[in-house]
Amino acid sequence: MMGGDYAPAEAIKGVKSYLETSSPLPLCLVGDEKQLNPLLEAHQINPALVQLQHAEEVIGMHEHPTKALKEKPNSSIAKGFALLAKNKIDAFISAGNTGAMLVGTHFSIKPLEGLLRPTISTLIPKRNGQTGLLLDVGLNADCKPEQLNQFAMMGTVYAKEILGIDNPRTGLINVGEEEGKGNQLAQATYPLLKANEQINFIGNIEGRDILDEKADVMVCDGFTGNIILKMAESIYDIARSEKINNAYFDRFNFEDYGGTPILGIAKPVIIGHGISGEKAFLNMLKLAEKMIRKDVMATLQKAIQPQ
Amino acid sequence: MMGGDYAPAEAIKGVKSYLETSSPLPLCLVGDEKQLNPLLEAHQINPALVQLQHAEEVIGMHEHPTKALKEKPNSSIAKGFALLAKNKIDAFISAGNTGAMLVGTHFSIKPLEGLLRPTISTLIPKRNGQTGLLLDVGLNADCKPEQLNQFAMMGTVYAKEILGIDNPRTGLINVGEEEGKGNQLAQATYPLLKANEQINFIGNIEGRDILDEKADVMVCDGFTGNIILKMAESIYDIARSEKINNAYFDRFNFEDYGGTPILGIAKPVIIGHGISGEKAFLNMLKLAEKMIRKDVMATLQKAIQPQ
Repeated sequence: MMGGDYAPAEAIKGVKSYLETSSPLPLCLVGDEKQLNPLLEAHQINPALVQLQHAEEVIGMHEHPTKALKEKPNSSIAKGFALLAKNKIDAFISAGNTGAMLVGTHFSIKPLEGLLRPTISTLIPKRNGQTGLLLDVGLNADCKPEQLNQFAMMGTVYAKEILGIDNPRTGLINVGEEEGKGNQLAQATYPLLKANEQINFIGNIEGRDILDEKADVMVCDGFTGNIILKMAESIYDIARSEKINNAYFDRFNFEDYGGTPILGIAKPVIIGHGISGEKAFLNMLKLAEKMIRKDVMATLQKAIQPQ
Repeated sequence: MMGGDYAPAEAIKGVKSYLETSSPLPLCLVGDEKQLNPLLEAHQINPALVQLQHAEEVIGMHEHPTKALKEKPNSSIAKGFALLAKNKIDAFISAGNTGAMLVGTHFSIKPLEGLLRPTISTLIPKRNGQTGLLLDVGLNADCKPEQLNQFAMMGTVYAKEILGIDNPRTGLINVGEEEGKGNQLAQATYPLLKANEQINFIGNIEGRDILDEKADVMVCDGFTGNIILKMAESIYDIARSEKINNAYFDRFNFEDYGGTPILGIAKPVIIGHGISGEKAFLNMLKLAEKMIRKDVMATLQKAIQPQ
């Protein structure tokens, strides 16, 4: 409840909105009870649906992640991971310090068996009204071909289970369409994706294809993906500051998407944008619910290690 | 004259416009005289200002570059490179087959002494009305830190001499602002740029900074740069198809910029976009003139090998 630039006020609003959905899961709210209790009352949130877990400390947005987690065992992020590790909660969401969320995940939550590296993704608004998935967007600046191959499998599961796309098409982000194009990583990744029967590989896609309908799952190293994501975010900011009123560019408002789950770990951990507002918190809660109800982590485990 | 989707009609129009500038350099037009002569007459182009160099063959936009150059020695591209190599012309421009332009350059025009790899760049419209330079945008999918350092030096010369920017600021495209961030390439490049006294290094820039005013010269490997360039091109296409009327997004019309010179070689070779129209040809001719009059290649040579 204490993570993000507008916490806990916007987090509470998101909680309130979520509890008004048709059949919400019960929530465990981690944070400072002195701040949260009056807000829960003010928003008339049904006490039967939420459980408050007091955390007297907060990790600031600019604190050093490892140091902060060590020195603040009573912070909301540290407590959240402790609860998740002990199966007291089924998913953990925070819009707080991203580094602390990643470090906390690394030390508390097991990776899937057979996994090389976890990944984070972003949703990309597609021109045809659909939504694509881009991964990795920054967790792995340098990648190996086998990692990209696993990202493709996990992205495929996510696109099916969460985005509801049948037989999602996977494209490899590259500098040309033909097989054999690209840097060493892309050249070595192509044959792995081509041979992978778990995915629907459609070949290379170029920078101009990222926003069009060619591929649903778009795979690249985290360096490239991070540049793409941040450039797309800046396009939205520019459109807004230029007062461009356009339904497509409005879909570049990454706040609306809520947050990104870390894929490749045993339990759902969802990292929100620092500027998350009510809608973002609501969407993260809905995403966590979907991941829990569909047991997406188990499907991801089967994808990574089929036997 | 035969290169590009609208050749030779748009090329002739560009020639006509260029010859109407205040003090144009004389032009040598390479192409099929049967097609060009009637066009020169129709546009009333002063024969004293142009010299026609007949080339009976044309390399198609989709021909294999090396094969085509070998099998078509009388193509306009092959003849252009022969003229440039023999100092019959001072610069060579074509909107034709990009691969053939690169292969032709490789086999006909010497690299600068001490150069590791030539590079191609693109202009990037900046939010403050200025124009930045992004390089490499695809010639070198895999790069070494020392190459990026040379790109930074060449980009600095180009920004000064051609874009008229005093003391251009160089940024390293990366996934975070702090030194030490990034993939192995970016991590190893940072100290080289920091220690380079020939450039005004301002540190890392992120994807969100590419379109803002932070840096004038933006350095990255050709894989990343190509994705950025093609994504920026697609933004323009989307803005147009969404009928967005906006002066800033209009500046993403890469046709207007004309073409990109290959940097790091002894003579100006300018590669145009396949869809080049009159304005693009005019701008390429003006760029070639500037490069010749300022002897930019000599300044680039001094930057690469100062002694």
